[in-house]
Amino acid sequence: MTKVTLKRKIAPRIANGHPWVFANEVQGIEGAVSAGDIVRVQTHDGKYIGSGYINPQSQIVVRILTRDPKEVVDAAFFHRRIAGAWAYRQHIGYTENCRLIFGEADYLPALIIDKFNDYFVLQTLALGMDKWKGAIVEALQKIFQPKGIYERNDVPVRELEGLTQIKGPIGPAFDPNIIIRENGLQFHVDLENGQKTGYFLDQQDNRRHIQHIVKDADVLEAFCYTGTFGVHAAHYGAKSVLGLDISETAVAQARRNAELNGLADRCRFEAVNAFDALKTWTKEGRTYDVVMLDPPAFTKSRENIQKAITGYKEINLRGIKLVKPGGFLVTSSCTNLVPPDLFLEIIALAAKDARRQLRQVTFQAQSSDHPIIWGMENTEYLKFLIVQVL
Amino acid sequence: MTKVTLKRKIAPRIANGHPWVFANEVQGIEGAVSAGDIVRVQTHDGKYIGSGYINPQSQIVVRILTRDPKEVVDAAFFHRRIAGAWAYRQHIGYTENCRLIFGEADYLPALIIDKFNDYFVLQTLALGMDKWKGAIVEALQKIFQPKGIYERNDVPVRELEGLTQIKGPIGPAFDPNIIIRENGLQFHVDLENGQKTGYFLDQQDNRRHIQHIVKDADVLEAFCYTGTFGVHAAHYGAKSVLGLDISETAVAQARRNAELNGLADRCRFEAVNAFDALKTWTKEGRTYDVVMLDPPAFTKSRENIQKAITGYKEINLRGIKLVKPGGFLVTSSCTNLVPPDLFLEIIALAAKDARRQLRQVTFQAQSSDHPIIWGMENTEYLKFLIVQVL
Repeated sequence: MTKVTLKRKIAPRIANGHPWVFANEVQGIEGAVSAGDIVRVQTHDGKYIGSGYINPQSQIVVRILTRDPKEVVDAAFFHRRIAGAWAYRQHIGYTENCRLIFGEADYLPALIIDKFNDYFVLQTLALGMDKWKGAIVEALQKIFQPKGIYERNDVPVRELEGLTQIKGPIGPAFDPNIIIRENGLQFHVDLENGQKTGYFLDQQDNRRHIQHIVKDADVLEAFCYTGTFGVHAAHYGAKSVLGLDISETAVAQARRNAELNGLADRCRFEAVNAFDALKTWTKEGRTYDVVMLDPPAFTKSRENIQKAITGYKEINLRGIKLVKPGGFLVTSSCTNLVPPDLFLEIIALAAKDARRQLRQVTFQAQSSDHPIIWGMENTEYLKFLIVQVL
Repeated sequence: MTKVTLKRKIAPRIANGHPWVFANEVQGIEGAVSAGDIVRVQTHDGKYIGSGYINPQSQIVVRILTRDPKEVVDAAFFHRRIAGAWAYRQHIGYTENCRLIFGEADYLPALIIDKFNDYFVLQTLALGMDKWKGAIVEALQKIFQPKGIYERNDVPVRELEGLTQIKGPIGPAFDPNIIIRENGLQFHVDLENGQKTGYFLDQQDNRRHIQHIVKDADVLEAFCYTGTFGVHAAHYGAKSVLGLDISETAVAQARRNAELNGLADRCRFEAVNAFDALKTWTKEGRTYDVVMLDPPAFTKSRENIQKAITGYKEINLRGIKLVKPGGFLVTSSCTNLVPPDLFLEIIALAAKDARRQLRQVTFQAQSSDHPIIWGMENTEYLKFLIVQVL
């Protein structure tokens, strides 16, 4: 097996659990290098750290898969890992829908698998993982006998790995428009064209947290996408829900979701630019009992972090202004570039500018089927906050 | 009304919402000063900030009660605030038991009221609040027609205010041993001799979070007090629960709580020093599927913060070692002197020393009936963490 020797200073980070080896952290490579091969990662003095897949074309030259020198990376390995991840999800309370594999947090770097009852959506985001797609699909088939597996590898990050973007069913074609159940409700999911894997499972537990505050409330949901928070609000007793999203497709799906749950009479969804709408309505002095904001990440790179800060602050400032005194703001951020403390700081600044006092009701991360490993910054990304606005 | 003028640099903190005025922050006082009186707090140039009660004997010379110059602090004021706080608790989902008044976070500094179904426990921790005890009790009687109100002013901090420590029923005597319902279970609460107000309501929501992970598990609960987490674990399907607490009284109550819920066959509680037991059992190599730790605050002063860090690290190191691979650690910290980030850092260090990897399942604060106001450090105190220990 080819040996990748780390620079002396780098070894501790990797030895302590981080699975990524960057190209500039390698002291030397001994043996043939073929992209996607499993290699041995070792300290400067030859001590075994782990085995992982190599891609000399990627900035992340090796991603570690196992730290057991005796463990062979083969089809059985992927079956074992996926079965283990499913056992874990069941153990922490997920039965129907969950992120089955959350990449690094499941020790399967660059692999994402979402389970939507009998359907599975797959992303292999690095070459060394893509190579095992067959074994991964086989494992899913053995463990779950799925009704369908859909590949959503239409992700630009694959190009950094020398992979093309593709999407489509794996195996026999099937209707990618499915219905899932969540918190006693039903939602249409478009596995083919929905954002990311088709549905944001990471908020599935957080959606329950609006249960009490929306009762009898007039609710505004900005960046509503397919209306899942809004439909939950109506289900939990909101008097009215107005959802805004710039995408006509998303808004149409949101309407269908409201209908599917018999809640269309209390839900209205409009295809508008939420940024503009919030600005205009703030000036008009409109107010709501509950304002929910779940904007897209304002940046994907650390260089543009200030852009994200400005974006979140502006949106939340407007959101806060639209809340009636004593009402609630429900606000999220989905980028790991804005860590929890910074997010709270941004919201506090927005409140100060709006001259409103806040009381924290709930502050938490993504649902537990997306485990967080401290120090793997990409696993800790979602912030979900409910505050009372006085 | 007596006027308290703040130093120029101090005013913004108080104007921005902090209710405490320290003695060294006052530029001058105009008018007679009688301990407990309501005074006007103003900027160096006479601009109104708020009205609050004064106590020249206290380090915190004024605590602000209202920022509305027209609002009169009288019996009706307390009735209004308490009724408002109750409406808020109901709005966020609390019906039977809750912290009804959480001091500063309810804009009633130094007042604590816990509601245990028809019973109330009261703490007035500053002289200026103690003075209004009659009005507060009257408000409780009007709003709730309680079966009993118990005063738990047996708290040393009152002496800093020139108050004595007292406890006992307010009004007609009643049996202070009551039973409350929580998450479908029942618990004995001793309003007279239980810790703090008799029961830790701040973990009432967190107790539900162990629901899935304890199923079929052998559970160890250290610092179990009256066994509430342990009884929840048994209720949620734990195979066995062993609870440890140094207090014979607490352990006896824990046993009674297990019996009350028909769970005594799976719960065992022992009066031992948990610090020692964890140490010994770690050496013996005992292991559990789930280890729950809810130790007392290791310090009450910022000067001894290192003591708290050492204490938490040591306890959690032992706790982690006692978890079977793939099992769970449920760990809390109840002092605001250890902020959330520091707490996570301590746990990470403990895991490193134990050579175990962690995956975060849940991380949150106290239940929402104890609202958090950012910048009022004493309102943000409880950390509740569940991690998988690999």
